[in-house]
Amino acid sequence: MTFLTRSIDTRLRSLGLTLPTPPDAVGAYAPVVVRERLGFVSGQFPLRDGRLIHVGRVGSELGEEEGREAARMAALNAVAQIRRHLAGFEGFAGLLRMDGYVASAPGFHAQPGILDAASELLSDMFGPTLGVHARTAFSVDQLPMDAPVELCLSFATSE
Amino acid sequence: MTFLTRSIDTRLRSLGLTLPTPPDAVGAYAPVVVRERLGFVSGQFPLRDGRLIHVGRVGSELGEEEGREAARMAALNAVAQIRRHLAGFEGFAGLLRMDGYVASAPGFHAQPGILDAASELLSDMFGPTLGVHARTAFSVDQLPMDAPVELCLSFATSE
Amino acid sequence: MTFLTRSIDTRLRSLGLTLPTPPDAVGAYAPVVVRERLGFVSGQFPLRDGRLIHVGRVGSELGEEEGREAARMAALNAVAQIRRHLAGFEGFAGLLRMDGYVASAPGFHAQPGILDAASELLSDMFGPTLGVHARTAFSVDQLPMDAPVELCLSFATSE
Repeated sequence: MTFLTRSIDTRLRSLGLTLPTPPDAVGAYAPVVVRERLGFVSGQFPLRDGRLIHVGRVGSELGEEEGREAARMAALNAVAQIRRHLAGFEGFAGLLRMDGYVASAPGFHAQPGILDAASELLSDMFGPTLGVHARTAFSVDQLPMDAPVELCLSFATSE
Repeated sequence: MTFLTRSIDTRLRSLGLTLPTPPDAVGAYAPVVVRERLGFVSGQFPLRDGRLIHVGRVGSELGEEEGREAARMAALNAVAQIRRHLAGFEGFAGLLRMDGYVASAPGFHAQPGILDAASELLSDMFGPTLGVHARTAFSVDQLPMDAPVELCLSFATSE
Repeated sequence: MTFLTRSIDTRLRSLGLTLPTPPDAVGAYAPVVVRERLGFVSGQFPLRDGRLIHVGRVGSELGEEEGREAARMAALNAVAQIRRHLAGFEGFAGLLRMDGYVASAPGFHAQPGILDAASELLSDMFGPTLGVHARTAFSVDQLPMDAPVELCLSFATSE
């Protein structure tokens, strides 16, 4: 266990964050796959205890702060998936990329601000070295389950 | 050739599946690129002999079973692309991720069920070890060529 | 520095191309992340000097040639991001994948032709060996900032 990875659990505690139980896959796939030191997390939604914490589109049914809450919840689920798959953070070598999808009302173009809530939380949790990630923001008309946000993360592993 | 990769051809035969001739790229790119043991298949559509087997959106022009047929056809084309690029399955080290896009009528939120048809076929073809993959489901308003499904696969190679 | 990477700067000059100053990230993420010889460029838009060169959807507000110009500008920005991150092209080991998103009017299905403008420019700049890439084309209703095109590139590095 390195200084960087040990500090992740310390950071989580100091942030007052408890990772949720990661949601099960909703189909014939795996929540996380790692091969050749490269890991992919299946698309994560703002689920808590099996239910979406918000439903609908940002800019109509939902306001921006609800969108940001949804982005944070999806990010927590993604991190919980990584921790469960790696049985901790020891093998975690840093985030690569986050694709963020925001279900948006027509004319709503402030997706980056919604996704910043997730990016900032990931940086807080993993620290600047392991938490830095490339990002792509998307505006979509609707998402599976009528969720407001879906996040796809990839990461590197050390073994 | 390992037990796992040899069994892929055996599995295909036992499933009664014949891989199609993989579609050519429809632009200035390659159907498959492999670098550093990581492979990407360009987006695959439900084409058979150069024509889409279904056209339109699931939930309006198309029913769910037609959507599932389209997902299976796109998955077969993706596997055919991998086999052609690797000249067999000897260098194939397992799927990483499938991004699945379903052209959906407003209010249709059952994309995971459509994409399961592809995920299940991939698991049947590659077996549980090499076939397991992360997945992200997307609902889109339309796809190129008015296709109902587009699949993007990535995979690991052994050399 | 290898023959292939040295020739990139030569190619740019012979094409009469000057790479733009790469746009800053518009949120809490990095424009490029490289880990384990794998690089991701955050989604790039057709920005020049901080402004979109075209705004709106292809097939309604914009014609196809304006869409192709937008695709080329986004590709130039992506290459400029790679060059800045790697401090040149010495460590560049080839493109992997381009995901191209085209904001499209209903009924416009010719996204591949729009994205070919970017793919062809990338092949011209990097040459056939390093420039070949897998590609996925998407049609979306709108993009952040009401941009007509967004491109996501990944690439391999040699160290």
